[in-house]
Amino acid sequence: MASSAALSTIRSNCRKVMCIGRNYADHVKELNNQRPKQPFFFLKPPSSILLPSEGPVLRPSGVNLHFEIELGLVIGKRIQNLDTEDDGEILQYIDSYLLAIDMTGRNVQEEAKKKGLPWSIAKGFDTFLPIVGPISKSTIADPHSVELYLKVNGEVKQQDSTELMLFRIPRQLSDISKVMTLEPGDMVLTGTPKGVGSVVTGDVMECGLRVGGKEVEEARMRVE
Amino acid sequence: MASSAALSTIRSNCRKVMCIGRNYADHVKELNNQRPKQPFFFLKPPSSILLPSEGPVLRPSGVNLHFEIELGLVIGKRIQNLDTEDDGEILQYIDSYLLAIDMTGRNVQEEAKKKGLPWSIAKGFDTFLPIVGPISKSTIADPHSVELYLKVNGEVKQQDSTELMLFRIPRQLSDISKVMTLEPGDMVLTGTPKGVGSVVTGDVMECGLRVGGKEVEEARMRVE
Ligand SMILES: [Mg+2]
Ligand SMILES: [Mg+2]
Ligand SMILES: [Mg+2]
Repeated sequence: MASSAALSTIRSNCRKVMCIGRNYADHVKELNNQRPKQPFFFLKPPSSILLPSEGPVLRPSGVNLHFEIELGLVIGKRIQNLDTEDDGEILQYIDSYLLAIDMTGRNVQEEAKKKGLPWSIAKGFDTFLPIVGPISKSTIADPHSVELYLKVNGEVKQQDSTELMLFRIPRQLSDISKVMTLEPGDMVLTGTPKGVGSVVTGDVMECGLRVGGKEVEEARMRVE
Repeated sequence: MASSAALSTIRSNCRKVMCIGRNYADHVKELNNQRPKQPFFFLKPPSSILLPSEGPVLRPSGVNLHFEIELGLVIGKRIQNLDTEDDGEILQYIDSYLLAIDMTGRNVQEEAKKKGLPWSIAKGFDTFLPIVGPISKSTIADPHSVELYLKVNGEVKQQDSTELMLFRIPRQLSDISKVMTLEPGDMVLTGTPKGVGSVVTGDVMECGLRVGGKEVEEARMRVE
């Protein structure tokens, strides 16, 4: 299937997007957050998904728009009450991988945090979830050994390996599945490494991922 | 269509559930919250939906489980950047109504509020969204004039009219649609009146709604 048809299908089948927060130590520090004792999660709505052919991320007026590059999983098999820390065991539940940008209204989120309000608005605007892929499980043999990068106007802003995750994927999926069932088609975003920052209208984000130092072509994305 | 088949279809078609918080003045007071200057929203995952035939709400261990009875809307027509305060104008976007219980892990939510963390877990456990219906637009001619009630073990806990909403439905849909597109099949929960409280395993919740003082049969629900 051509990548754009496959991505359209992935969007159509997606009923929830679960994102892990604060999953890389240096990113926790850069936002002056506390390092979590256990993974925590939030939802983005499927309506925020933006495919490569669909134009720019839209910055709502007054919003400080931040990028967060993340490795995404597309769930292939229902997960309920899973209990494992085993890397091999979780592969059966993953259909494929995505590269995703968890766009965030940082000032909206900061205000919500101060007031104890939900994050759904800060994280959920239309176009706030550019995705590219899918990337097959044969291409990414080990999801904990992938280099993610994101450049803004040619300058590298984020570039780190997924081996730096504080909570690895089996723990993430286990913890989510004890709260809510993961259904085929659901997406999980696995957190962002350090280097998040603002973009303004006209900026160009380019991102991708490397496996064993080699660029994976299906994961290249350019978003205005 | 029989009500249970219709509800199954409603669940299958649902890709997001947007819920308004603090939309009844006396409920805002009972939780010692601040009255919002504008509506705010959060997401529940479609995986939390519980249909009448599916058994009890499951209380996760250590969770103080609260009920919140709410009038729900099923969206029939895409809404993007709507700007209206007109009650008549929004009816075209509503496919039908539901009665819903926004089950909430109150202690989990209180802790999230204190720490500035998202509400997705407190609101998103499996079985945390019992729904009943659908109720047609001909049955509910005016969604701002419906009496909602919820009893626990035969005792009335919540009973108020939707005319007490702080932000009416046109404002809710307008505000949501400026953040995220509402798609056909999405649900909107319109907030809960005063009287929320805890239930424990074995308690029986009975709820329903009345229009012009008359019980609407399709909205009766009994949940353990
Ligand atoms: Mg993120
Ligand atoms: Mg959702
Ligand atoms: Mg509620």
